[in-house]
Parts: sequence; structure tokens; C-alpha cells
Amino acid sequence: MTGPTKAKRTNTAKQRSAALRKALSSTLMILSVDRAGSLALQTQIYQQIREIIVSGAARRGTKLPATRTLAHALNCSRNTVIAAFRQLLAEGYLESRAGSGSFVAQVLPEDYSRPHWFEKGPSRPGRRMELSERGQSIRQQAWSPCDRYSAFIPNLPDVLEFPFELWQRLHGSIWREPPRNLALHHGAAGLASLREMVADYLRVSRKVACQPEQVIITTGTQHGLDLTARLLLDPGDRVWVEDPGYTGLRGPLRSAGAELVPVPVDAEGLCLPVAREVAPGAKMAVVTPSRQFPLGAVMSLARRTALLDFAAANSMWIVEDDYDSEFRYAGSPISALQGLDSGTRVIYIGTFSKTLFPALRIGYLVVPKHLARDFVAARSTFDIQPPISDQPVLAKFIADGHFASHTRRMRGIYEKRHHTLVASLKTTFGNDLSISSTGAGLHLIVTTHGRLLGRNDDRSVVERATKRGLILHAVSGYCVKQNRSGEFLVGLGTVNEATIPRAVSTLHRAFLTSANRTTK
Amino acid sequence: MTGPTKAKRTNTAKQRSAALRKALSSTLMILSVDRAGSLALQTQIYQQIREIIVSGAARRGTKLPATRTLAHALNCSRNTVIAAFRQLLAEGYLESRAGSGSFVAQVLPEDYSRPHWFEKGPSRPGRRMELSERGQSIRQQAWSPCDRYSAFIPNLPDVLEFPFELWQRLHGSIWREPPRNLALHHGAAGLASLREMVADYLRVSRKVACQPEQVIITTGTQHGLDLTARLLLDPGDRVWVEDPGYTGLRGPLRSAGAELVPVPVDAEGLCLPVAREVAPGAKMAVVTPSRQFPLGAVMSLARRTALLDFAAANSMWIVEDDYDSEFRYAGSPISALQGLDSGTRVIYIGTFSKTLFPALRIGYLVVPKHLARDFVAARSTFDIQPPISDQPVLAKFIADGHFASHTRRMRGIYEKRHHTLVASLKTTFGNDLSISSTGAGLHLIVTTHGRLLGRNDDRSVVERATKRGLILHAVSGYCVKQNRSGEFLVGLGTVNEATIPRAVSTLHRAFLTSANRTTK
Repeated sequence: MTGPTKAKRTNTAKQRSAALRKALSSTLMILSVDRAGSLALQTQIYQQIREIIVSGAARRGTKLPATRTLAHALNCSRNTVIAAFRQLLAEGYLESRAGSGSFVAQVLPEDYSRPHWFEKGPSRPGRRMELSERGQSIRQQAWSPCDRYSAFIPNLPDVLEFPFELWQRLHGSIWREPPRNLALHHGAAGLASLREMVADYLRVSRKVACQPEQVIITTGTQHGLDLTARLLLDPGDRVWVEDPGYTGLRGPLRSAGAELVPVPVDAEGLCLPVAREVAPGAKMAVVTPSRQFPLGAVMSLARRTALLDFAAANSMWIVEDDYDSEFRYAGSPISALQGLDSGTRVIYIGTFSKTLFPALRIGYLVVPKHLARDFVAARSTFDIQPPISDQPVLAKFIADGHFASHTRRMRGIYEKRHHTLVASLKTTFGNDLSISSTGAGLHLIVTTHGRLLGRNDDRSVVERATKRGLILHAVSGYCVKQNRSGEFLVGLGTVNEATIPRAVSTLHRAFLTSANRTTK
Repeated sequence: MTGPTKAKRTNTAKQRSAALRKALSSTLMILSVDRAGSLALQTQIYQQIREIIVSGAARRGTKLPATRTLAHALNCSRNTVIAAFRQLLAEGYLESRAGSGSFVAQVLPEDYSRPHWFEKGPSRPGRRMELSERGQSIRQQAWSPCDRYSAFIPNLPDVLEFPFELWQRLHGSIWREPPRNLALHHGAAGLASLREMVADYLRVSRKVACQPEQVIITTGTQHGLDLTARLLLDPGDRVWVEDPGYTGLRGPLRSAGAELVPVPVDAEGLCLPVAREVAPGAKMAVVTPSRQFPLGAVMSLARRTALLDFAAANSMWIVEDDYDSEFRYAGSPISALQGLDSGTRVIYIGTFSKTLFPALRIGYLVVPKHLARDFVAARSTFDIQPPISDQPVLAKFIADGHFASHTRRMRGIYEKRHHTLVASLKTTFGNDLSISSTGAGLHLIVTTHGRLLGRNDDRSVVERATKRGLILHAVSGYCVKQNRSGEFLVGLGTVNEATIPRAVSTLHRAFLTSANRTTK
């Protein structure tokens, strides 16, 4: 492996500066000569290099390409280039070092006459402008996934297990010599072959009632919800959201001007009776029926039917976020809510971030048939089409059976970790911790008892875990109005069999120190 | 090349059905057994396959995987699978054909008791819901690039000249064994190494004053403008747009609730005096100063300075769309307007769609330094991060000098075509057509005279060209209020040296027939 990635990883100053030099010497080659123009070639070359230096783009001390190389690239005589260089040397823009070529001078003539706006900031009148009111409100919703990597992050798959070599081979089979149309435009809904594969997969494995034309490829769950909220809501519309619930879903809704109505969850999922009481006129409900995030409840059939009936009677949209139902270790998979609907009011959102890897950014929406054309057309307004590169690769990955075998393999790996984690937590914590496992997903929920509970607040536990190199999320961090404490998410995507016992024991110390400290 | 891409290209029914069968037989493998559960393995397998069949997901007549394969995948005895299959056969869900395995039955028991909502459409009460008011207004802005391919499409590069094999090699060097972090999260602004390369490139070649932290990777120009409009405008704000101008820019602005103020253009670019008169309180101006789209005027230095001064005095944002300035055949490149500003009110938008290929969907915003953090944070609200796949590849492509040499090479190719096209048009049309070439870009503008003008309307010319297999855009199609006719864009990305004379002669016939017909 070479190039910027490697450079970034090893991050040595030497490599970085070498890469930069290389880039600069190549960008310096962006000179063009106009043979039909009125200026002599030598003058054109002189002027262009001078501009590059004066603009500050080529840093002082940067080595220039050899005159021979430049002459070759510009298809002109070497003498022409040498003449241009001589002029630059004479005027002080270049410095020549015997035997090693020409360099951008350390002190430039312009240092004495540099335009004042270049270094001194604003010179024009007028106040410094900031985000619009809407912009400020959007900015407040900013949300970012964890950018560190350590044990117990919830919601992250184990990317080290992803078959990158296979993926790369498929990529090569398509992109070494792609058909012309693949490099051009293929529609705002995404690549037809991928939409077909996703529709087939969802029908079979999730019982989603859909045809390929209802599938819209997105860059992930947030993006899908953003599109949905902008198209189905008007500013001021009220939306039921689960409390606690996935924080990443709130931004797109509020950015679209929606008013969020947090609704508590119980063992059957979103508490419909409370929701009806608090905000009967809501325009949309956003739910995670297959496995409530983060607590794990599966929405009962009775609740599903009641929710669909309420939505039908009250003209309410239902957004179903089916974020990780591929990973279910016990019992048969739960069908999607979407499949129970008449096909007119559920928007189904899914992602490949958890089954493949998060940076891929491929997700999908399944929209009601009568809205499919509208959604696709509207998406083209602000996003012509999703990036092409991985779409045909993923379609082939699914078609050739690799997706099914990869998710099956990962389910096995996570299931093992799940059991090991539960066993290790029980051994280490004893009765101080209870574990609520729904036998599914990339995290489990633990609740503190006894001496761990005490006057121990969530924030101090999380901080102490962080200091010990663990990342622990408290359920309270996912709450809006609900007042919960002593419950935590323990993720299993970023640990492995071998590291679990040690990580659990570190977690135990974090809890104990915290408990001791706060109960002193 | 194999898989969905090839299948899509050749599109034979046989290949498609083979791919589908393969997909279905692999998705059928998404069965999971719970050894700790209360149900016998055989029952679990029976129930899951039955569900897949009943849901309609596995089409009738689909062949099931061999019992041996299934047993191996589920890690259970083959007898268990055979027992489950026997039950399905007995109940009529499967059919067995001697010597060729088991198939989903053509007639299912459920055919007599299918849930009514499955096939008959809505059964629940309530009206069919449509897009919100905002959604409808966004939908009306729908915009789509040309999805056919033929001579004279403006704005499309020649993707057949793109070095896909080299690109694929770079892709492999990174993705065969990527560092773990590349597959996880790397921030809403895009990959650091790519932002550095883009900043270096823009400083050198476009005189854009920027640091890497001001660069935000987008999925293209529309996406960049969408983000900008949502963050800097409030609904009802007025925005100056060029008339004629790029139609794709209007959607994001109107979707953000902006009121567009079309401003005519002259030889110096956007007519500032008119704009000040018509809408002095505008909040934003969207301009193409390097080469006005579609007419080609370069904004004069005087106009640039006046525009920046007006913006400073009136708290107005300027969005600079620098869409194809890499392709300039005569004279030196024109510096970006952004570099003349104090760095606080120009948003610079660029794209790799024209220099590399459109389906790549990688573009960038350069935002003022004081807004960089806000923009990145706000983007995370509805789009965690841009897709990773091509970002490190592009960074390496630039760093290794391939970007510079590719654009140089393409500039040469387009320049040749440009000359051939001009010569061919002159020979064929004589005085009936004048050509306004600014010696740059992927299209030139022709204006009809004499017998071609007559009472000939643009629409009929375009239609007749289409019937002859050409794609011709009229300038009038890019106008809002301006009343222009007899001017057309002739693109040079989708023709080559060899095909130009014939395409021009076809174009000539389209004009003549049209002229004859309409003047009859």
C-alpha cells in the first residue's frame, strides 16, 4: 500500500512532505502554451510559473521540475524553458542550487508589495456574515458518529472481518473496462441492477412488499430520512419519535422544520396510547419495530396493527428504520412492518453500513408505489444521482451470493461474541449488573444494581470508562424527556472473543472506581 | 466482465433470469437455526422456507438449493433438511421433479386464503397521501441530465478517454487491504488527504485562496449548492441568477425556499447594474465568472471588483460555480473570483464530473474560513460523510500527477475537436451560422442567420435534430425571462475527430428541413 492512505496512517513528516513535493511538482506541470497566441512561448512559461509562485501556491523552497521534463511535457524546446527559468532567477522568483536544480525563492520580490487582502484578512467593508436562521438551527443538530475505535462502541460492525480482497476483485471485474454508460448518468434512483437486487433481498429476507422501482439508493439512513422529511413534511408538522431513540434521526427531521414529539417505549415498542394522547395530529411516526433502538424491544403484532390502523385513520406517515435486523441470533427473523401495510404509507429505510462497512455509505429507501416517481424526481433536484463506483459491485456481491454468506458468517461471529460477552459480564459483575439481551443486534443493554447503582451518575461512569480506553454509551444519552439512569449499551462490533474478558474487567474497574468515588 | 453490469448491457432475458435464479437461491440460504430454541431444527427450517414461499418472495417454479448444500450451510444433518422438505412437499409448498431437485410449487395452498391486502391494494381506511406542499414544490424543480448519448450534448466529457485501468489499479492498491479506519468514519467534510490535494490544486491552478479545512467534499455541484442554500438562506430570500444560466442550479435554490431573480448577462458576465436595480436586497448571487454558462463570457476584472464591493456593502453572499475552467485552449487560465475576495463571502463550487467522469459524483465546496466548522457540522446532520470508495483513489490520482496529465491530455483532445468543429461548421453552413467561441469549454455557441433564421423556432430545430439522432440544446432552453432565439449549444465531448464532419452535415440537414418546413 502506498499513497495518501499509507501516508496518513504512518503519518511521518517525511512521507507527507515527499507526497506534497510530488503533488506540487505535478501541479506545476499545469502550464499550457498557446502557439497561436501573441506572446512568445518563453514569456508564457515565465508568466505562468511566476503566477504560481506569487499566488503562494508553490511554497517557498519547492523544487521545480527539471527543464528537460517541462520542455518534454509542453512539447517545446528545452532552450525555451531555460530562458523562462533564467528570467525568473534574475527577478528573484527562483533560486538555483548547483547540481540540484531550481527552487522557489525563500524571499520573493512580492514580499514588499503583496496585495493587502492576501494576508491581512477582510479589507472590504461590511459585517462578517454568518449562517442564516435556518442554517443555525441545522447546525445545532450536528451529529457525529464516534471517531475513535475501542471496545464497546455500539452500532459499529467489525470491519476487519469484511472480505475486502473479494470486494476489490469484483470492483476490478467491472471497472477495469466499464461500459460507457456506467460512467455517465444512470438516474437519480441509483443503478437499476442494484435496485433489483435490493428489492429481491428485502422481499425474501424482510418480507418487504416492493418492486425495484420503489427502491431508491441513498448514501445512508440520515440521507434517506432527510429526503423523506423534506418531501413528506411541511415546517411545523409534528413527528413522533421514540424516547430513548436513535439520536441520528432527529437532525434530518428538525432540519426540515418538524416539531419532534418524544414518545416513551415499553416492551411492545413505541407506546401508542401515550402518543395518541400527546400528539394525535402528528404527521409522521419514526419507529424501529424490528428491534427498538437502543432498548431492543420488538414491536408486537398487536401494536403494529394498531399503529397502522391509527396511521390510516389519521393520515399519518410511518417511517420504519430497519437498521440491523440481519443480526438476530435466536428465533426466526421478524418481518418488516412495511409488509403489513397496504403499501401506501410506510417509508422503509435500510442501510448496508452495518452488514458491510460504514464508510461505504450505501443505503436505500423503499417508498410507496404511488410516490416512487415523485421521490426520484425530487431527489434529482439536489443530487443528480448517487455515486456510481460501488453500486455495480454491491449488486454483483448480492447476486453472486456473497452478501448472504457474509451476513451469515458475521451473524455467527457476533452470536459467539454475544454469548462470551454475556458470560464474561455475569462472571465479573455478578448480581451488580443485569443484562437484557434480545438475542439480536450489535449491542446489549446492561443495568446496574446494588453497590454499582448508588449515587453513581451515568456521566461519571462514561467518563471513567473513557479514561480507561473504553467507549460506553449511556441509555440516558439517547433520551429526550425520559428520565433513565444506570443503563448502558455494550457494543460487540469492536471487540473480539480474545479481548472480551480483559475489556469487561476494565469496565468493571471503571464502574467500581466511579461508584467508590461518588459514594464517598 | 461479468455480473449485473454485463447483464444489463447485453440485457438478454436468459442472462437476467440466470442471475435472478442465482440471487434467489443464495437469499434462500438466509435461514438461521436456533439450537437453544424450543422448536426442533426441522420445524424451524420448515417454517422459514414456508414463510419465504408464502410471502411471494421466492417465485413459483424457483429451484431450491440442494438439501446437502443447505445442511452444510446450516451445519445440521442432511436428514433434518430432508424431513423439512418432505413436510413442505406434503403440504403443497414444494414440488419435486425426478432427478432435478425441489421447486417452489406453481400453485400454493395460500392461493385460497391469501391476505386480502397483499394483492388488492389498500384495504385500510384513509385517503391516499401525497407529498407535502414543500415536497410538491421540490418535485416541480426536478431536473435530469440527458440520459441518451449522441453528438453535440453539451457539458459531458468524453468518458471513453478516461484511464479506467489506471484508476482501477490505484483503487486496488488502496482497497485490497485497507487500513481499518478507512472503512469506518472519517468526518463529514470528506477524507483529509483528498481535501489537501484539492486545496493544493485550487491554489495552484485556480488561484483560490484556501486551506484544506475549508474544502468540503460533496457529491457534485447540485449537492454543494443544496448545502449552501440550506445553510446561508432563509425561505423568501432573493437570489440573483444568470439568465440564461445553468438550469441545474435553480432546483437547490428554490427547494430551499429562495426567490430567484433572473439577471441578464452581457459580454462582461452578469449585468450588475440591472441586478442592483431589480433586486438590491438580494441575499446571494450565483455566478459563473470564469466562463458564463452557457454563453461563455468571462467576467471582466472591473465587473468582478464591482460585484465584490456591492456584496460587501450589502451583506450578500456570492456563489462561484467554476464548472469547467480546466478546459481553456487559448490564453492563460482565468483566476477564480474567490481569490479576489477578502475570504469571507464567496462560496466556491467545483466538480470532478467534467475532468474525470460524471457518474463519479465527487465535487467540492470551498467555504470561508470562519464558516468551515459550521458547514461541516451542519452537513453531518443529514449526511454523515461522503462515500469513501473513490476518495483515497482520487487523492492518489492527483498526488501522483495523473490528474494534471489527464486534464492536459483532454485539453489537447478537446482543443483539436474544437478547431475541427469550427472548421466543419464554417465549411458546411457558410454564412448561415456564426460561431461564438471563447476558446474554452466543452461546447460552443452557434447563432443562425439568413435562410436558417426565418420564422424557424428553436423547438422545431431541436426536435428535427433529435429525429436525426443528434442532441442539440437551444440557449432559449436555459432562459428564464430573456427572450433569445436562434442560438444553440454544440457540445464536443460526445463526438470525435472522425465523426464530426458527418454529424455536422446531419445537423445542417436538420436546420434546412426545419427552415423549409416552417417557412412554407
